[in-house]
Amino acid sequence: MTEKWYRQCGEQSEMVISTRIRLARNVMGYPFPNRMTDEQREELKRAVREAVEQIGGLVLEYIELRDCEQRDILAMVERHLISYDFAKQQTGALLLSPDERISIMICEEDHLRIQVLGAGLDLEAAYKMADLVETALDERLHFAFDERLGYLTQCPTNLGTGMRASLMLHLPALQERGAIRQLSGNVSKLGLTIRGAYGEGTQAQGAFYQMSNQVTLGISETAAIENLNGIAQQIIKQEQAAREAMLSMPQFEDRVWRSYGLLKYARSLSNEEALKLLSNLRIGIVSGLITDVSLEVVSALLGDIHPGCLMAQAGEDLTPESRDKRRADLVRAAMM
Amino acid sequence: MTEKWYRQCGEQSEMVISTRIRLARNVMGYPFPNRMTDEQREELKRAVREAVEQIGGLVLEYIELRDCEQRDILAMVERHLISYDFAKQQTGALLLSPDERISIMICEEDHLRIQVLGAGLDLEAAYKMADLVETALDERLHFAFDERLGYLTQCPTNLGTGMRASLMLHLPALQERGAIRQLSGNVSKLGLTIRGAYGEGTQAQGAFYQMSNQVTLGISETAAIENLNGIAQQIIKQEQAAREAMLSMPQFEDRVWRSYGLLKYARSLSNEEALKLLSNLRIGIVSGLITDVSLEVVSALLGDIHPGCLMAQAGEDLTPESRDKRRADLVRAAMM
Repeated sequence: MTEKWYRQCGEQSEMVISTRIRLARNVMGYPFPNRMTDEQREELKRAVREAVEQIGGLVLEYIELRDCEQRDILAMVERHLISYDFAKQQTGALLLSPDERISIMICEEDHLRIQVLGAGLDLEAAYKMADLVETALDERLHFAFDERLGYLTQCPTNLGTGMRASLMLHLPALQERGAIRQLSGNVSKLGLTIRGAYGEGTQAQGAFYQMSNQVTLGISETAAIENLNGIAQQIIKQEQAAREAMLSMPQFEDRVWRSYGLLKYARSLSNEEALKLLSNLRIGIVSGLITDVSLEVVSALLGDIHPGCLMAQAGEDLTPESRDKRRADLVRAAMM
Repeated sequence: MTEKWYRQCGEQSEMVISTRIRLARNVMGYPFPNRMTDEQREELKRAVREAVEQIGGLVLEYIELRDCEQRDILAMVERHLISYDFAKQQTGALLLSPDERISIMICEEDHLRIQVLGAGLDLEAAYKMADLVETALDERLHFAFDERLGYLTQCPTNLGTGMRASLMLHLPALQERGAIRQLSGNVSKLGLTIRGAYGEGTQAQGAFYQMSNQVTLGISETAAIENLNGIAQQIIKQEQAAREAMLSMPQFEDRVWRSYGLLKYARSLSNEEALKLLSNLRIGIVSGLITDVSLEVVSALLGDIHPGCLMAQAGEDLTPESRDKRRADLVRAAMM
């Protein structure tokens, strides 16, 4: 089995969990997905599938969402391979690389959403890979492009590059300090948005945040990526300073070691608690307090502990209680 | 250094932590302590000390409370060697065996309070030891005794045998079930009293309870002990049944293992949390879930983790924060 991309750590992994590049593209000669007939949709899916098969060196599995179990679809949402809206429709299809690094949603909001994921800070490489796939597909499918508006997309907010670049950041010290709201206000003035990567509460579960560019029109892909990267570097510096203060807090060590003890021995863990504890464990590893668990183990768990992932792995639907038990089993096994 | 008695486990240690026998005695020819002059008190202390020194095979350290550090006095209260009232007065003296099994308070409420402690259910042996010490002292000091009233004591509730027999019971399952209040009502009808062994809240911290006889008049020592023992056996049966139900609760294993993980790794533990976690660990050991920590380790910790004990051990006064840290250090070291 090919190792999944998220089981690794990349550049600046102390604070950057992962990178995501997503390109929205539409094929000339077809209406946007919300106006397509069933026949047109099937025709487009076939065309994209065939185009991908013609690209040398690119092996993507073709997955019809309507043929999938609900738990497998949920797992794909949790791993950020498909969007929640795409999962709901169930009329689309997905092309997916064995390492889950490259995925193409067919008939989401746009005809194609080409996505490349990567561990750590990996904007350039991820963009290069997305661009390669996009170029190869463009040759065969011919994407709708306008000299003034750039790539045509169903929603005008994606016009231009059609590119969304995101970084998943781990910001426990800034969250602890209550600094995320102000940070969010600041980055939005710079054309970026920041939100919790998991859950939907006011505070991000486990202090994992997704930061992405909002502007796609009147800016090149490279400039957008540079902008995102530059602001990320500033946030990393702020988090670094906040962490130094956090590390000298009297309760810091206790909190890290308690999290370690609970992850190592608990027999039942809710998703929310697991995220919180893994967040504490992560900063414990980065700060050098915990030496017998690697960041890779935490990264792998962050990809595996979600409800759908657990059920997909089990191959059956599970009650919340069984999931909490399985989650604790998975974490314990990984911590040994 | 002689091993302290509480570092061991005794009979029925699944539920009985320790046994205590206390005999109240007053020496003929002296007024009760609350009416004594300073001279009389000093004279009595000297007389008792000399009498003890004449008893072959009995080696007790003589401790003047006014010469003790406050933290050492607090530690003695926490280990049930002296009463809180005795600690406050600071005019009395204590005779104490190296293993802390035998102690004699001089000039508490009565002239002498002879106490013998023991691990587990140890009523007969503890009474026999207390009786031996008492008999030897009676020969030399001559205790006030009345044919009808028995041993004369300052408070009429102690007249008769002057004996208080107590068992410290661990009743987590009955506490969990909310059955302690009713139990308390039932045993009080049978001449016994039950109360939390640590802390003063409505619920006993860590589910440790002290059960003692209340009746001293018109009943022999042997009958009082048999009565206490008989009722203890019934409570043990009830706790046993409640534990069986508790063990099959889905959250039971998780709770035990979480407590194990926290005790093993926390860097700061309040007294209250430590008692709660040790209580969970204890039932985990008794139920066979935890195999790498012994009941003796838990017993030793239950004797060592209290604020005064920690400061006495450190030889200096400590802030609550430092105590919590030291407590966690002590627990961690014991769990290794």
